Amino acid sequence: MTQEEIDIKYMKRALELAKKGEGKTAPNPMVGCVVVKDGEIIGEGFHEEYGKLHAERNALNSLSKSAEGAELYVTLEPCCHYGKTPPCTEAIIEHKIKRVIIACVDENPLVGGQGIEILKKHGICVTVGVLKEEAMKLNEVFFHYISKKRPFIAMKYAMTLDGKIATVSRDSKWITSEESRNFVQVLRNRYKAILVGIHTVLEDDPMLNCRIEGGVNPVRIILDSKLRIPIESKIVKTAKEIETIVVTTKADEMKKETLKSLGVKIMEMQNEICLPELLTRLGERNIDSILVEGGGRVHGSFLQENLVDRVYAFIAPKLIGGEKALSPVEGKGIQKMADAVKLKDTECTVIAKDILITGRVEKCLQEL
Amino acid sequence: MTQEEIDIKYMKRALELAKKGEGKTAPNPMVGCVVVKDGEIIGEGFHEEYGKLHAERNALNSLSKSAEGAELYVTLEPCCHYGKTPPCTEAIIEHKIKRVIIACVDENPLVGGQGIEILKKHGICVTVGVLKEEAMKLNEVFFHYISKKRPFIAMKYAMTLDGKIATVSRDSKWITSEESRNFVQVLRNRYKAILVGIHTVLEDDPMLNCRIEGGVNPVRIILDSKLRIPIESKIVKTAKEIETIVVTTKADEMKKETLKSLGVKIMEMQNEICLPELLTRLGERNIDSILVEGGGRVHGSFLQENLVDRVYAFIAPKLIGGEKALSPVEGKGIQKMADAVKLKDTECTVIAKDILITGRVEKCLQEL
Repeated sequence: MTQEEIDIKYMKRALELAKKGEGKTAPNPMVGCVVVKDGEIIGEGFHEEYGKLHAERNALNSLSKSAEGAELYVTLEPCCHYGKTPPCTEAIIEHKIKRVIIACVDENPLVGGQGIEILKKHGICVTVGVLKEEAMKLNEVFFHYISKKRPFIAMKYAMTLDGKIATVSRDSKWITSEESRNFVQVLRNRYKAILVGIHTVLEDDPMLNCRIEGGVNPVRIILDSKLRIPIESKIVKTAKEIETIVVTTKADEMKKETLKSLGVKIMEMQNEICLPELLTRLGERNIDSILVEGGGRVHGSFLQENLVDRVYAFIAPKLIGGEKALSPVEGKGIQKMADAVKLKDTECTVIAKDILITGRVEKCLQEL
Repeated sequence: MTQEEIDIKYMKRALELAKKGEGKTAPNPMVGCVVVKDGEIIGEGFHEEYGKLHAERNALNSLSKSAEGAELYVTLEPCCHYGKTPPCTEAIIEHKIKRVIIACVDENPLVGGQGIEILKKHGICVTVGVLKEEAMKLNEVFFHYISKKRPFIAMKYAMTLDGKIATVSRDSKWITSEESRNFVQVLRNRYKAILVGIHTVLEDDPMLNCRIEGGVNPVRIILDSKLRIPIESKIVKTAKEIETIVVTTKADEMKKETLKSLGVKIMEMQNEICLPELLTRLGERNIDSILVEGGGRVHGSFLQENLVDRVYAFIAPKLIGGEKALSPVEGKGIQKMADAVKLKDTECTVIAKDILITGRVEKCLQEL
């Protein structure tokens, strides 16, 4: 194996470790770390939870022998500032690591290449960019949030192969297979919050929780301009256990007080719900990412405002037809096909009988 | 290699050869044949064109040495009847072939297992079912047509990832990449005819020909109940070179005569266009398969009548939104999601930036 191949091998392992923190590190990134000496892994670790030790410290705490002269693989540039934990660069220097291999630079302005500089100053050999794209993608939410201060928006819908999310008589149970619906739970663990329109609550009375073992429930955000959410809905009934934010423009003080007493947080906006403003305010509350689960009108609004960052489209191999059947993205729509919102890095995965297509939205000039 | 692995290897080659006849054998099946002796291919052939020699005869005509004691691999049961060519079973017997390996039985009532019986009677060892599914799929049109006497219907559309075939202002240029559009030409070569609604002709003035080198133009079928097709349209102008059938219910004798004088064939129906009747009549004209290229209303009608056999959905990784944007399958639509038309054997292929999903329609009780 060449050194490059060796580096890729260990960085892959570091990325695997990093993913174990999914759903628990926000608004911190997921980071994995592997310490290698004489061709043998002598320490591993990952950032397990927001506020807890960084991946490098966990790896160095797990050493089976001295790390002097060892190589340290880490998926993100080591931090060099005092935050909730002391800087990782210090620990690396103390352990007399010979070489540090980094997948990508930390775009956090508190780090931004300075971690690398400190290591180099201490005579440590540094290699940057091994499996960079994978590492960037793993933390796309983190990189987005740290630069834009508003949550990363992942839009999710399930449709038939002829592009419908419900029949002409609004029946939608079920479009996709059980396996696809289980995968949605993985997404609910991945993103910090989930957002739906009030129609979804009124029609389905959903829980919008995360039903995977060890999963974290997303913060539930309901767009409800007329404050129609029923007091007896499952969401309101469980608002004391699962953080729930209802966004409204309606000045019904009595209903607001009732909802608040049941644990619901009310976010008020004037006249109409302004999505960019909403996202700024949610960003201030440490919400770094939102899974937007529709319906079509809500999706249309996010698209119209150019706020979508990633799309998950679950496609079931079936047809229902119907000029008036519901479509996954409604609203006014874009006029020219050439102006369509384009996706990049598209991936296609088969889940049981269904197909999941996901991709990042290519941002252009109109971007905020 | 086990005998089974060896059989698969040569049958794969036979299937490759069979595909070379694509677009030219209808209403006959595509068939490929390989003759193997002492672990060496000594002859190959395929059915090149309707009316010409069968694959087995072509393979046996290409022998590099005597086929005595050889094995013959063929993707479809050899014929045993006198049609446009003498029976292939005779040639196999004459050449003293020791063993015949067949992918699938010929469902043509003139053959239907009798070819196998004749070979066995002559002491030839016969193995049936090697790569059967691939062979059945390769000739799905043939198997459909021979049993139902009406054309196999392949519905094709290109849509955005949010299920639209045009924007709210009806702009549709272009949804998919050039590579996907080139692949449509492969489909036009694969199927005997192409069918569109009059709206497609009025809006796009298309040629609906096959633009690949060596490709065969499909018969063009236009559903045009009010006989609105313009005399100066590209289709009418080229009707003398490319077979064109206009299906109408309008009794405008003068326009009909003009169209006929320009080479257009007129198929008349009473009151309204009845798709099942149309397909029966087209089947009588040796049209074994039709690529239905829309628009949404035409697709909706075919779905409603449960006439679709295969779907090709090209999906472009872009979003345009719009409650009133056009959908690939319109019409009245199906009421219950549980009653959706389901696809099986779904395949997913990446074509440049796009994704092609294709699958066979699962037929149920309502089937004709």
